[in-house]
Amino acid sequence: MSSEPQMTRRELIKKGAAAGAVAVAGTGSLSGCSPATPSNLPQKWDREADVVVVGLGGAGAAAAIEAGRAGAKVTVLERMPVAGGSTVLCGGLVYMGGGTPLQRATGFEDSSENMYKYMLAAAGEGADPAMVRIYCDNSVDLYDWLVELGVTFKRSYIPGKWAAVPTDDGLAYTGNELQATYRAIAPPAPRGHHVQGPGETGFVLWPPIKAGVEAVGAEIYYEAPAQRLVVNSEGRVVGVLAEVYGLEEYIKARRGVVLCAGGYAANKEMVAQHCPLYLRSQFQVGTLTDDGSGIRMGQGAGADVRMMGDAFAYSGIYEFGQALVKGILVDDKGRRFIGEDNYGTWVGKALIEGHPVSYVIVDQAIWDEVPELGKKYLTLAGQADSIPELARAAKIAPDLLENTVNFYNERASRGEDPEFLKDERYVVPLENRPFYAINYPAAYVGFFTTGGLKISGKAEVLNAFGKPVPGLYAAGRNAFAVTAEQYPGSGTSVGEALIFGRIAGKGVAALEAWS
Amino acid sequence: MSSEPQMTRRELIKKGAAAGAVAVAGTGSLSGCSPATPSNLPQKWDREADVVVVGLGGAGAAAAIEAGRAGAKVTVLERMPVAGGSTVLCGGLVYMGGGTPLQRATGFEDSSENMYKYMLAAAGEGADPAMVRIYCDNSVDLYDWLVELGVTFKRSYIPGKWAAVPTDDGLAYTGNELQATYRAIAPPAPRGHHVQGPGETGFVLWPPIKAGVEAVGAEIYYEAPAQRLVVNSEGRVVGVLAEVYGLEEYIKARRGVVLCAGGYAANKEMVAQHCPLYLRSQFQVGTLTDDGSGIRMGQGAGADVRMMGDAFAYSGIYEFGQALVKGILVDDKGRRFIGEDNYGTWVGKALIEGHPVSYVIVDQAIWDEVPELGKKYLTLAGQADSIPELARAAKIAPDLLENTVNFYNERASRGEDPEFLKDERYVVPLENRPFYAINYPAAYVGFFTTGGLKISGKAEVLNAFGKPVPGLYAAGRNAFAVTAEQYPGSGTSVGEALIFGRIAGKGVAALEAWS
Repeated sequence: MSSEPQMTRRELIKKGAAAGAVAVAGTGSLSGCSPATPSNLPQKWDREADVVVVGLGGAGAAAAIEAGRAGAKVTVLERMPVAGGSTVLCGGLVYMGGGTPLQRATGFEDSSENMYKYMLAAAGEGADPAMVRIYCDNSVDLYDWLVELGVTFKRSYIPGKWAAVPTDDGLAYTGNELQATYRAIAPPAPRGHHVQGPGETGFVLWPPIKAGVEAVGAEIYYEAPAQRLVVNSEGRVVGVLAEVYGLEEYIKARRGVVLCAGGYAANKEMVAQHCPLYLRSQFQVGTLTDDGSGIRMGQGAGADVRMMGDAFAYSGIYEFGQALVKGILVDDKGRRFIGEDNYGTWVGKALIEGHPVSYVIVDQAIWDEVPELGKKYLTLAGQADSIPELARAAKIAPDLLENTVNFYNERASRGEDPEFLKDERYVVPLENRPFYAINYPAAYVGFFTTGGLKISGKAEVLNAFGKPVPGLYAAGRNAFAVTAEQYPGSGTSVGEALIFGRIAGKGVAALEAWS
Repeated sequence: MSSEPQMTRRELIKKGAAAGAVAVAGTGSLSGCSPATPSNLPQKWDREADVVVVGLGGAGAAAAIEAGRAGAKVTVLERMPVAGGSTVLCGGLVYMGGGTPLQRATGFEDSSENMYKYMLAAAGEGADPAMVRIYCDNSVDLYDWLVELGVTFKRSYIPGKWAAVPTDDGLAYTGNELQATYRAIAPPAPRGHHVQGPGETGFVLWPPIKAGVEAVGAEIYYEAPAQRLVVNSEGRVVGVLAEVYGLEEYIKARRGVVLCAGGYAANKEMVAQHCPLYLRSQFQVGTLTDDGSGIRMGQGAGADVRMMGDAFAYSGIYEFGQALVKGILVDDKGRRFIGEDNYGTWVGKALIEGHPVSYVIVDQAIWDEVPELGKKYLTLAGQADSIPELARAAKIAPDLLENTVNFYNERASRGEDPEFLKDERYVVPLENRPFYAINYPAAYVGFFTTGGLKISGKAEVLNAFGKPVPGLYAAGRNAFAVTAEQYPGSGTSVGEALIFGRIAGKGVAALEAWS
């Protein structure tokens, strides 16, 4: 049996797509460029615009559209030969609520206040109430904006909990809204809005957004990596030094620059510098251009950062079939540490931070229920007719595992899980031999970074003294916005990118031109 | 019974001293100053020196001494009316090893390699091998340097494990060297070098160091808060804007500036921004001027930061008497999560990050052994004749606590702790009623920050592109150096401050003057 993690189809596609693209745009590495020191204006500007947007994923597109609609001449620089960033690779989910037309049409009540209560609690320690409020209050408007751009959501709800919706249904629970702890905080409502199409529909979501960028007349340069920000002697960001058609060019930004270049999960050195536990994950979610270049460019202009120690870590047990949630997740000491029915980011986080070597323990009855498609991605650490034997086979402390299983079984036979309040549908004693230990390590966790430049509620980039860096905005994973210790639900990153990208685009377009 | 944390004598002194000092230096707040944008040179410099050191604690003093000895004219700016920073308030421990004269004199063998192995493992995820190596390789030299300055260490060893040495003995185990996990990694040696004097002797350590600063002729300005760095058009740090005698002055630094202004534990806003879980602690260790001003000044000049998500968190169970280690530490779910004999930073971290509501469970036999001095700082959450009753009294899940105690007792009666490998001296079953639940929450954890400016092994401050910010050095808690996920042992912060402070002082003095 292999102990190597297996790459899922989705991940293969992402790795493949990203790797190919990077090879083409390879010269865009920032590692060799000079330090981003305060610079005088160049002798000559090679191009100019009102607004320069760095990165054409969801955030950059939203910023470009709003800036363009406000009358600004917009130039967009994209490192890759294709647009879309992580948004085109995503599952096609946008986390929205507060009573969207789709929520109402499918019979769900929601309010901005309930959404806020859930998101603030779910985002965990370090969440910014004001930013979460902005997200929630802009949520219905985002839905309308997407629909107006031509994005469609089917008027249907799919029951269950989904990190990725496998059907073409429009609405799903994609977070931890139904889990006991959070149900007590706010009445649950499904908020994962799934773009109509088969399964993971980032590729369906993206074209109408990109068409929106083109509709406002933005000039888009591909294979055009930004190198650093140009800052004048007053500290105002006045342009970007970038490679365009293979040449270094100074591009003037008369009003300002919006950094939307993604996170830094693909940059192992930065991960080691800020959130080293996440090196335990072997699956970066997103593109290989998520190398933190936008964050570092911002820092070079004096920007502060926020929550660089945290990241998104996903490992949903239900992804392999809901039956697997009936198993118990234990670490190499044989101890449970989280309810198996939690949204995958709660599970992923627990694996990464405290229990890197873990296993799902199931009996034959559960194993029989796990769909073949799920089993395909699972490997066994052991199989045995008794729990102590299973523990020995899988190198789990035998004595401890037996105590855990006995304790669990005794209560599960009454339908109870006093330790983690797992939903009673999943609480059954493990008693049908043989028993299986399924490898479930931190290495399999998918991760991307959520810390980034510190921004205000207006998406202005802030310096270490809490003041805006004049002329500089950021959105998407380039900035920290909503998710903190925890990730509220699938579709939050796309939601953050679009909501704060729109805010940034409106803000930068409204700045007074400096030249 | 009060659920309020009790302030220890030491903490009271620290808070009191710091609060008083800050009131005097009150106008030095950075919150109102203008953003640290690239600035042209001032029309006129009010003072000048070769080297300006910001902050006169251990790091600043070491930098000033070395720069002065190298022939530089040194100016030191200290916000407080007195010198010493956190160093004068510390326990008088310096973590050194690799075969110091004191280690040898007390019969302990140690090598730089063994010290390195322990420190690298103990510092945990995110530790920088090169920086740890520098610390270890400079350790014996630091000992000699201190002795030459007039610091004395008694040639005696005190057995046991001590976060603070209560006697005047010279050498102690102050980290996790003896704990099972780490003993397997490197042969243990005591490395806590305790400055001779009664108990916590930071106040004994400090005067000879300060005298060393005066001996090199450094000009020291008190109540002189630095406001921001002055950066020329090439991005070189050329001076400091500071308040001196109540007036804003530009102080030219012909060679460079060394930032030694401490961490940011006293700045709740920065803690919330970078490591919000530590807001769970109610005891900041250090001075109230640890507000991150030095870190932010560095960022304003383009500096990068490192490991801002982690911090030192201390809660040593043995501090209340070694007997208490015989109890079991459980959270509100009644589950153990760490061996009770671990060095207090392992325990503190576990409380802060995962188990903020916790209790030490003991029986009457253990309780009788806890010294009165220890009991004075402890409060009870409950007392009862059976474990389920105790659990109900203390609001711990009863069923779970009973299982934990039964499981523990069964093995403890054989002298075993298979879960956490607690030292067998502390492994006894809890069976003498009544039982006690002692409050042991994250709120009582003492903390200070360990993340800071990113520096090279030469203590040069690095920008986000990995290049030095010309003319800028940092040391002590103002920078990240050695401690990462974990804190290797008491005396490490003073050691880091002195070792990297010395390196910074030598480095900045060797820079070519820009004017």
